[in-house]
Amino acid sequence: MEFIKGIQKKETTELADLLTGAYTGKTVAVSGAVHTIRDMGEVSFIILRKAEGLIQCVCERSLEGAAQPSADDCHGDSCEERASDRLKEESTVIVTGTVSPEPRAPHGLEIRVSEIRVLSVPAEVLPIAVSKWKLNTSLETKLALRPITLRNPMERAKFRIQEGIVRGFRDFLHSQNFTEIRTPKIVARGAEGGSNVFRLDYFSKKAELGQSPQFYKQTMVGVYDRVFEAAPVFRAEKHNTTRHLNEYTSLDFEMGYIDGFEEVMAMETAMLQYVMKLLSKEYEKELLMLKVTLPDVSKIPAVTFKQAKELVSEKYSRPIRNPYDLEPEEENLIGRYFKEEFGSDFVFVTHYPSKKRPFYAMDDPQDPKYTLSFDLLFRGLEITTGGQRIHDYDAIIKKMEARGMDPEELASYLMIFKYGMPPHGGLGIGLERLTMRLLNEQNVRETTMFPRDVTRLEP
Amino acid sequence: MEFIKGIQKKETTELADLLTGAYTGKTVAVSGAVHTIRDMGEVSFIILRKAEGLIQCVCERSLEGAAQPSADDCHGDSCEERASDRLKEESTVIVTGTVSPEPRAPHGLEIRVSEIRVLSVPAEVLPIAVSKWKLNTSLETKLALRPITLRNPMERAKFRIQEGIVRGFRDFLHSQNFTEIRTPKIVARGAEGGSNVFRLDYFSKKAELGQSPQFYKQTMVGVYDRVFEAAPVFRAEKHNTTRHLNEYTSLDFEMGYIDGFEEVMAMETAMLQYVMKLLSKEYEKELLMLKVTLPDVSKIPAVTFKQAKELVSEKYSRPIRNPYDLEPEEENLIGRYFKEEFGSDFVFVTHYPSKKRPFYAMDDPQDPKYTLSFDLLFRGLEITTGGQRIHDYDAIIKKMEARGMDPEELASYLMIFKYGMPPHGGLGIGLERLTMRLLNEQNVRETTMFPRDVTRLEP
Repeated sequence: MEFIKGIQKKETTELADLLTGAYTGKTVAVSGAVHTIRDMGEVSFIILRKAEGLIQCVCERSLEGAAQPSADDCHGDSCEERASDRLKEESTVIVTGTVSPEPRAPHGLEIRVSEIRVLSVPAEVLPIAVSKWKLNTSLETKLALRPITLRNPMERAKFRIQEGIVRGFRDFLHSQNFTEIRTPKIVARGAEGGSNVFRLDYFSKKAELGQSPQFYKQTMVGVYDRVFEAAPVFRAEKHNTTRHLNEYTSLDFEMGYIDGFEEVMAMETAMLQYVMKLLSKEYEKELLMLKVTLPDVSKIPAVTFKQAKELVSEKYSRPIRNPYDLEPEEENLIGRYFKEEFGSDFVFVTHYPSKKRPFYAMDDPQDPKYTLSFDLLFRGLEITTGGQRIHDYDAIIKKMEARGMDPEELASYLMIFKYGMPPHGGLGIGLERLTMRLLNEQNVRETTMFPRDVTRLEP
Repeated sequence: MEFIKGIQKKETTELADLLTGAYTGKTVAVSGAVHTIRDMGEVSFIILRKAEGLIQCVCERSLEGAAQPSADDCHGDSCEERASDRLKEESTVIVTGTVSPEPRAPHGLEIRVSEIRVLSVPAEVLPIAVSKWKLNTSLETKLALRPITLRNPMERAKFRIQEGIVRGFRDFLHSQNFTEIRTPKIVARGAEGGSNVFRLDYFSKKAELGQSPQFYKQTMVGVYDRVFEAAPVFRAEKHNTTRHLNEYTSLDFEMGYIDGFEEVMAMETAMLQYVMKLLSKEYEKELLMLKVTLPDVSKIPAVTFKQAKELVSEKYSRPIRNPYDLEPEEENLIGRYFKEEFGSDFVFVTHYPSKKRPFYAMDDPQDPKYTLSFDLLFRGLEITTGGQRIHDYDAIIKKMEARGMDPEELASYLMIFKYGMPPHGGLGIGLERLTMRLLNEQNVRETTMFPRDVTRLEP
């Protein structure tokens, strides 16, 4: 009987190990995809692409004798013949050779090749040069060829940073005694209502795709006091804008026993501080590649909705058209105002009008036309919506009835209030938007691995 | 202008801090939900439920004078009056009092109450006693009242352990240079095919809910070499069994540059070793509550599909009816066999018949009727399916055509092979099934927060 005991050491060496310097002068085997081949006559340079970066491999004529092409893969006698034969861009290989210092190569080292084993060969030449430093093509083409264009080092760096944001979000909340939850995405009724829901047939019952884990995360506050989830949400937005997606990742948390919605803003601020620290520590390479300067989140200004509208109206001589809503241009100007006046890339806008918030938002007892809620704007774009929620059963029933809603339809959600809930609040962050603003991209599709929009269902 | 700078220290103290002993003899404020109230005449015991556990609070008659009910919340003069008034089970409160050692109380301490501030009061009495140690009710009732029954300490402990499994999965893979990815759940075509797909209308186009991130995770191997995702998948299974769900969490990873599918099994084994270590270290309390003994995963036996069928046929005198499929009872017997013969709760069954595996599975060159694939059984239940994938463009086109599939329909997936992919493989783990087996539950709904099945769309 064979037993599997865990990971065996591989014959190949990883880039991180090469970079320690311990292998300099030694013979190693390194696997990777052929990113580029430059044939210079006397010598050929093969740049290998690995997850952690690029590595230069050099085939010299003088190495011909030393080259030991493995029987099943290499048929030529010289590097050049192999290069023109099975060694193509996007072939995958294991290169064996000596690690040598080379200041002009990536990471200051190269591999002097003695053998190349070809693992796989593409059937066709790439339709786009992914090895260029920056892909010079339209967003349309980039997305149509996403499975390939993501191989471009600049493109893939974006999603490493996105990974880092999610890691930071989770790790920080875990350190604050939040429990990670997993809530269903097929639901009987969406939390936000309205027309932007995807409907599906669920064994002859009507179902929807969750627009938000709102009801479930509130439910779980009754169980674990503090909870979070990073998961997909679905919005059937019919308009194609640079900032909307039909499926996106929502970073949600919800916390009980709060003294006010300010505590939720404080938690988000601390979370962002943690995320920026993590990125600067563990994603430095990607930040450098993308020329990203991390924003200062040591303190974030907070301004009321009403005040924010007045401030930008005054400074930018813009009449207030609708006192109960923020237009995208106004959001933009608020962002600009706080950058100019306070040097801040972020601003919390608080006390949104009650009629623009869902029924579960807690109204401000001092002025029930407004709510104990907030949005967080990042460089003029809303990336977070949050606030305190109603926790009293009678209060939520009253508010639903005032809005003409039927409490019977949400009985399984309202159950939590009927049987007791602590004061609580929380928020949802659009991950792709946060990434977009952080990377100074102009379209949220740039920071979405495989975006879904009105016209895009593939790849 | 107000600035938000991060978390402020709360006036309330958390259980973990009380357990350090630093607060013994001191006055603290503690928030929580009233789990039970026991009125003993001279003294009342209030058990508070917090995320981390229970804490006993004692109201004595002699404390009456010292009690300082806060004006807006407490109207009575004595503990008893307050207890019968606004202090009910599932009220949420902040209790102020002195921390005293008490060997008979949970964690060996109690709070001698001087003041109770009521934060919220339920509208109705719980329909089920969640404060019982073990909920004595049917699964049906438990699920119908899920938002409430999850407050039971045994119930919620299950999902803490589930959280731990996912944390371990992610942390381990991160340490092995895997990158976390986020793939779309609304897709043009499912990866597994067949009839068990949920269909939806996507802006007048036909779309499906992803049955698996298979195509996307393979795609991302071309980008990051090693990737993982922990996310929901959707299967429109029409049968109600104890082990099927219509929405579940799939723990997926996929890795490039493998020497064989054995490397995928080795990675899973090492991951399970890490998870068990994490659980024993950070989820000890929950394991104790649920009386769970962690399985030994230091080594996991591997047996071929063919051999496994023969072994159980022989030992349990069971004729082999279908040499190309495993019946659930056979899976069960294989589990039993390896427990009895090798003391192992896990067994890898390898080389599944090609016709039972999807088109992207790599056939065994030594016998193409079988594949370079495996399932992992845990106590007789399949919890993982994995294997090596085809990476050559011509090979995958040929296999699709042999199965009567139209490559044109999957062009955006097949693009990755056309332009070059390394040898690779991976797996998907059913999180709820793994949790179910670990906790010795008999129904996968027991270890699903809000299960979706043929009849269940709420809560």
